[in-house]
Amino acid sequence: MSDFVLDPRLERDSTLLMKLGLCQLRLMEDSRWPWVLLVPQRSGISEIFEMTPLDQTMLTFETAIAAKAVKQASGCLKINVGALGNQVRQFHLHIIARDEGDPAWPGPVWGHGQAKPWATSARAEFTERLLEAL
Amino acid sequence: MSDFVLDPRLERDSTLLMKLGLCQLRLMEDSRWPWVLLVPQRSGISEIFEMTPLDQTMLTFETAIAAKAVKQASGCLKINVGALGNQVRQFHLHIIARDEGDPAWPGPVWGHGQAKPWATSARAEFTERLLEAL
Repeated sequence: MSDFVLDPRLERDSTLLMKLGLCQLRLMEDSRWPWVLLVPQRSGISEIFEMTPLDQTMLTFETAIAAKAVKQASGCLKINVGALGNQVRQFHLHIIARDEGDPAWPGPVWGHGQAKPWATSARAEFTERLLEAL
Repeated sequence: MSDFVLDPRLERDSTLLMKLGLCQLRLMEDSRWPWVLLVPQRSGISEIFEMTPLDQTMLTFETAIAAKAVKQASGCLKINVGALGNQVRQFHLHIIARDEGDPAWPGPVWGHGQAKPWATSARAEFTERLLEAL
């Protein structure tokens, strides 16, 4: 874990909420959706099959925990989970709260329009609800 | 597993390749990308955190196996993995081979244009390579 360095673009687009056993849990700087990232603190990983079986299992459990917390904190209809990495190769998993009528519904959020910054109070409120739900 | 019934839309849009320990592995009927689905043979699941920890672990290992096989069989640059379910609630995981310059690159494939049917020979050739790589 010691040689893990977060990709600069992930660092720019998201904010660290907490470190789990394997992953950094980060809030995306886009208020259009409650949207977090899980970034395994491992170097040189871009595909899930490059991780050890133990790390794969850890990632799955952290995904389930984070997805459930995002659902509880947002009250959303559906969770979207995705690991694309077409633009940023460092492995990162998106967990996004979706609702009917949201800006991209029912399509995917990636590449949809421009990010809309969080208002400070709304970010603090969602973050508090999310950390309570974890 | 006995009361599992595949969603009719997933059945229409994809073809069974084989059954793994937990999931059906299915080929999407869209030749624009080598694209498979994993569908856990469990009823009433729409989110990953609704699965048992054992099923979550099985899903992860089957995801890694299938993703590695899709990468080998296609020679693609990057694998995209996603579980959205905005339109079909039955849990299903997409595994897609992506390359620079493909029809949706670098955006996501979901909701992009119209599916293009496979030619019979191309489908057979990709399926054979995929099953060999598994």
